[in-house]
Amino acid sequence: MKRIFEADPWKVIGNVFDNDTNEIAESIMSLANGHMGFRGNFEEDFSGSTLKGTYIAGVYYPDKTKVGWWKNGYPEYFAKVLNACDMISIHLWIDGEKVDLSKCHFENFTRELDMKQGTFTRKFDVITMTGKRVRVGSLRFVSMEKKEIGAIRYTVQPLGDSVDVRLISYLNGDVRNRDSNFDDMFWEKISVASHDGISNITMATKKTGFIVSSSACEQVAVKGVDLKGTLVSDDGLYIGNEYSSRVEPGSLFIMFKYFSITTSRDYETSEVTGKSLERASEARETRFDALLEEHRKSWASIWSYADVVIEGDMLSQQGIRFNIFHLFQTYTGHDNRLNIGPKGFTGEKYGGSTYWDTEAFCFPFFLSTAREDVARSLLIYRYNHLENARKNAKKLGLEGALYPMVTMNGEECHNEWEITFEEIHRNGAIAYAVYNYVNYTGDEEYLQEYGLHVLYEIARFWASRVNYNPRKGKYMILGVTGPNEYENNVSNNWYTNTMAAFCLRYASEAADGIRKRNPGRFAEIAGEINISDDEIKRFVTISENMYFPYIDELDVFAQQDGFMDKELLTVDDLPLSDRPINQNWSWDRILRSCFIKQADVIQAFYFFPFEYDTDVKKRNFDFYEPMTVHESSLSSCIYSVLASDIGYYDKAYELYLRASRLDIDNYNNDTEDGLHITSTAGSWLAIVHGFGGLRVKDGLLRFNPALPEEWTGYSFIIYFRGRRIKINVREDMVGATLLEGEAITIRIWNNEVDLYNDNKVIEIKGKS
Amino acid sequence: MKRIFEADPWKVIGNVFDNDTNEIAESIMSLANGHMGFRGNFEEDFSGSTLKGTYIAGVYYPDKTKVGWWKNGYPEYFAKVLNACDMISIHLWIDGEKVDLSKCHFENFTRELDMKQGTFTRKFDVITMTGKRVRVGSLRFVSMEKKEIGAIRYTVQPLGDSVDVRLISYLNGDVRNRDSNFDDMFWEKISVASHDGISNITMATKKTGFIVSSSACEQVAVKGVDLKGTLVSDDGLYIGNEYSSRVEPGSLFIMFKYFSITTSRDYETSEVTGKSLERASEARETRFDALLEEHRKSWASIWSYADVVIEGDMLSQQGIRFNIFHLFQTYTGHDNRLNIGPKGFTGEKYGGSTYWDTEAFCFPFFLSTAREDVARSLLIYRYNHLENARKNAKKLGLEGALYPMVTMNGEECHNEWEITFEEIHRNGAIAYAVYNYVNYTGDEEYLQEYGLHVLYEIARFWASRVNYNPRKGKYMILGVTGPNEYENNVSNNWYTNTMAAFCLRYASEAADGIRKRNPGRFAEIAGEINISDDEIKRFVTISENMYFPYIDELDVFAQQDGFMDKELLTVDDLPLSDRPINQNWSWDRILRSCFIKQADVIQAFYFFPFEYDTDVKKRNFDFYEPMTVHESSLSSCIYSVLASDIGYYDKAYELYLRASRLDIDNYNNDTEDGLHITSTAGSWLAIVHGFGGLRVKDGLLRFNPALPEEWTGYSFIIYFRGRRIKINVREDMVGATLLEGEAITIRIWNNEVDLYNDNKVIEIKGKS
Repeated sequence: MKRIFEADPWKVIGNVFDNDTNEIAESIMSLANGHMGFRGNFEEDFSGSTLKGTYIAGVYYPDKTKVGWWKNGYPEYFAKVLNACDMISIHLWIDGEKVDLSKCHFENFTRELDMKQGTFTRKFDVITMTGKRVRVGSLRFVSMEKKEIGAIRYTVQPLGDSVDVRLISYLNGDVRNRDSNFDDMFWEKISVASHDGISNITMATKKTGFIVSSSACEQVAVKGVDLKGTLVSDDGLYIGNEYSSRVEPGSLFIMFKYFSITTSRDYETSEVTGKSLERASEARETRFDALLEEHRKSWASIWSYADVVIEGDMLSQQGIRFNIFHLFQTYTGHDNRLNIGPKGFTGEKYGGSTYWDTEAFCFPFFLSTAREDVARSLLIYRYNHLENARKNAKKLGLEGALYPMVTMNGEECHNEWEITFEEIHRNGAIAYAVYNYVNYTGDEEYLQEYGLHVLYEIARFWASRVNYNPRKGKYMILGVTGPNEYENNVSNNWYTNTMAAFCLRYASEAADGIRKRNPGRFAEIAGEINISDDEIKRFVTISENMYFPYIDELDVFAQQDGFMDKELLTVDDLPLSDRPINQNWSWDRILRSCFIKQADVIQAFYFFPFEYDTDVKKRNFDFYEPMTVHESSLSSCIYSVLASDIGYYDKAYELYLRASRLDIDNYNNDTEDGLHITSTAGSWLAIVHGFGGLRVKDGLLRFNPALPEEWTGYSFIIYFRGRRIKINVREDMVGATLLEGEAITIRIWNNEVDLYNDNKVIEIKGKS
Repeated sequence: MKRIFEADPWKVIGNVFDNDTNEIAESIMSLANGHMGFRGNFEEDFSGSTLKGTYIAGVYYPDKTKVGWWKNGYPEYFAKVLNACDMISIHLWIDGEKVDLSKCHFENFTRELDMKQGTFTRKFDVITMTGKRVRVGSLRFVSMEKKEIGAIRYTVQPLGDSVDVRLISYLNGDVRNRDSNFDDMFWEKISVASHDGISNITMATKKTGFIVSSSACEQVAVKGVDLKGTLVSDDGLYIGNEYSSRVEPGSLFIMFKYFSITTSRDYETSEVTGKSLERASEARETRFDALLEEHRKSWASIWSYADVVIEGDMLSQQGIRFNIFHLFQTYTGHDNRLNIGPKGFTGEKYGGSTYWDTEAFCFPFFLSTAREDVARSLLIYRYNHLENARKNAKKLGLEGALYPMVTMNGEECHNEWEITFEEIHRNGAIAYAVYNYVNYTGDEEYLQEYGLHVLYEIARFWASRVNYNPRKGKYMILGVTGPNEYENNVSNNWYTNTMAAFCLRYASEAADGIRKRNPGRFAEIAGEINISDDEIKRFVTISENMYFPYIDELDVFAQQDGFMDKELLTVDDLPLSDRPINQNWSWDRILRSCFIKQADVIQAFYFFPFEYDTDVKKRNFDFYEPMTVHESSLSSCIYSVLASDIGYYDKAYELYLRASRLDIDNYNNDTEDGLHITSTAGSWLAIVHGFGGLRVKDGLLRFNPALPEEWTGYSFIIYFRGRRIKINVREDMVGATLLEGEAITIRIWNNEVDLYNDNKVIEIKGKS
């Protein structure tokens, strides 16, 4: 692995320009605000390796699902995240020479992502054919305060002789997805026009009919004197303004570009264009510095509660902030129709916006950093999709609700049978998030309003999906794919059976609980979704008689029925040239092998830390971890949490580093496609749930902190039931501070610690 | 089921025209000769439901393989059978009215396929707008004698008033495959021209570069006076000749159209067009009646040795001849680069030309009807693909040779992992065909020249594909799909393990045998493919220690390891509305169910009739048959043979009828896509191997005949080691006659019967 970026606590800095790694840098330096996002592309022309990307939350195209032979039950479409109108771009000429870093001579190149401020800046000196040196600089942000706007400051400064500067700032709607199968255009033009100096392109997505309106305008000045632009456009989807000026040495050509995106998701069709123009106009009036200042304040607010400080290890520090930064860029909880796409706003791969990654990996992060409403928003999202999940189950001939593997609006949009039809453990993760939320927040109102509906329909699904095996006197779940996608269509995946048993038990407990605490509301729900005592009894019977495959001679859970028929090897037995096996082995060889893509049995230990004792966890970890290749971005983090849980801190640290720097160090050799957004939360889990040992049981917040050898200390802040609590871990000492909210008792190691709202650091020394 | 065609011993007759069933009739009445084929389309325009199809053996297009997510090891392309230049067509106007049966008024419509003569004829009376009645007739054949030509006689006869007849006979190269994903054109124009009245279109396939040249010319006369044609063409791929005449009542407008196809598979690139013109010109000189006569003679010769006569049951008789007819239309053995495509020359579905169907189902038919060289040609085909089969195994990380699931030239061209990578039992069927051929013919020379190479490399594949399970002390085969494609990625499919053990054992025996009988040749082969004693020993060890799943309490073989974990139901438990399940159930539900698509355990009993005693066969048949939905065209026939084997003659008859009339009665509701060519041989197996009980053991030809209740008698002819033997079965009597070849002893029931070359019928009464 060759490190591409420089380590820094708050920044990702790239001082070397290399065409081969340019798309990686573009992914890493993407900017977004939950509504829209932009890859870290150059504003000026660049004919080298680049994926110019603009993405808008919730806007998608239902591409064809192309498969060998059609299987009944497959979805009708594959939802693609759409590359939208390019808004950041300019053409720049200096003395008539077009600036294109792939072609012209330049020096002192640097680009950096400032995670504290949420800005992307670049700087380089162009050397013209006649040897003139001109400094070009840009600073871009996508407002966290005003979701529909973004702005750029672009400067051109002759360092020696005076130069002619000519600049066209434009919008370009003629954009294709790189992953378009046949270079299809997914957009239709509605209008291209200029109003009051503001360029506008309004387009609609084909088939889905989303209307998206993009606007941009500029303020350009040289030596404090405003330049007037000239309209440029063509017959197609290109429009902008041109500016020219002679610029003397010492003076600055400066452009502020303001851009906005509005969509028919938020406005009436007739209003979309007007609102887009309005936003751009407002931004221009507010001016760049004021916009940037409020944007910075938004980020400062986020960091005030979500920051994790690591001391003594710059790589770890940079890694965790990078992950937190991109998570908040991707999802802010302001719109419960949205979710957390696998690439966020950083690329096009995968398609769809919602995977089980949300509930299993991202949800705990938002639950403990943002306030309840953000996590709750993610749960309401699934509640709103319940009807589609029912249809999905019905399509497979089953009862209740099966949430989709990949979705935009609740409809399944992935089409491989072993995933779509069989990776049904996803349903368990959604029920688990309900449990996790209620356990963490104590929010009974949510459970009664939304939660039980989801839980009960999921339990109903499992009850129809099991089959009773009279030979064993147990309920079985045949034909599934577990979290380890390197096994397909196996029977009795231990993790899946565990989650199914949990769902059935928890649904029955939740129903019984609400019946006791609020009989009136229970009767309403029972009427709405047809709850019966017989059915609840059946849930309990199945849950209590679930079959769990076990390897007697090793005293460990069997990943699935046939696991022990495989040839058992460890990752150390693999030649380096075979790894990653998903790039070097045929699929059947992977399936037949014992090698595990990501936490499977171990995932359940993460979800249910109190259900299994340390010996059990250790035995299973010792058996399965050596066979795990961690070829999923969701693997290292969970193994890291478990390693901490059982005291394997060196292993935990190694896996933490891998998880937190997955993209920044391009571990999987695919960062150019975009970041692994849904796994970024994993490195936070590795610190807070892993090293920090955060758990909640019976309403009591507990920590079991440990300090990795490589660190001198670390601290994080937790939101818990109206409080903000800071935990600061040093060698043999943990400090706890209540920053906000009422007094509370928490547990650190085995100490009950009372925290009062006095900002005082309570110090607990060593494990007692 | 509504019967579409009338029963007749030698014909398939359709007297009713129905737009909805027209494409079924087109499939049924397809004509071909192993080199080229034409669906039973109308010559004149037809704007109703039709799939106009012209197909040429060995000419294909490598279409993209489109899958959800790419898997390592997938093939680069999906080979499509190509719809080629349309050659049979004409435009016809009567009194200026275009004849189009979808639009004009007509009466007395009839079309028939004459299987004895190999002709397709049609007749109908057009009633013009002014009420004139005109009889139109056509007769078409595709020469079995001269593979590159075909001819049509087309007549127009006014039955009342005189009419103006205008006719354009043309070629049209602007043809698309119906299964083209995006209406892609797979052909490129090379030339369109007319020479000496012969129209010619020469085109090349994109990517594969096959050159195909199509020519056509006409002889047109009215009242014995020749009409001269006028050239018509456009800028594209359309060329022909136009003829017009006033035709008086009582006189006949008659056109003979001769057409030819030559390809670069048979000629140098520069010669292809010239040869095509030459063939058309020769045909025109030979004239229609002479061509038809030699074509009829060819068919008469085929029927003289391949006919099966069934008495007392017209539907059975029509069914078997229909199957035999289409098999010989599809494959004649004249070109060992060809094989038996799943739709022959009758449609486009599936793609590729070779499946394991050839060895498992078609091979025994050709082995016993045509002479050895035809069956041998099918084996040489696989020998010639050995190098590609080695590459295929290597792609999956395995040793030896893995023959493709679907192929044109030995390369795999199917892309579903559960099939491509896992349905590896196909390799067993190929080794079995070697065994079957050598056992039947005693052709040791073939085994030494070609057979051992194939066998040994197949055994090598299995030896690398098994894994040793130390817990059971057995070799296992994980992750396979058996013949029952309604289970995917199962472990230890009993049939697959049985075939693998057979391959390993037979390869070692064949190697040892050749080493003894011809040490010199053995040494050569051993050098060529690196045979070692250690490896042979390993083959034997694996074969002897193969794991076979067994259901102890039922005393039957387990279809696969997990079979008994399923809910066991029978087909009778299924509501009729659920069938066929492949059209009504989601794929995962099918996979989890016990329902079986086609013979799986039972398939092995068919291959190895002497290995299992009747009780074993009965127990397994009784267990598995009630769970079998027969939703593959390859199922009923094998079950029928087994039903006969164990004396379940009523069941055998029911299954025979289903197998033999699958297409003619459109059982699977998909005959419009083309016929199920590779399963047509199955109904012959059901008669000759099933009711007739043909077996060969230790060089002795045996029969164990039984007569289904519905028949009064049946007879068939068998080619065996240079002899033709006719077997005639009646109630309580079997007649055997040596038609050709030296005297031989055969066994009928338990009687040894000596046959001499005297054409005498030897009668054996009852089972002794």
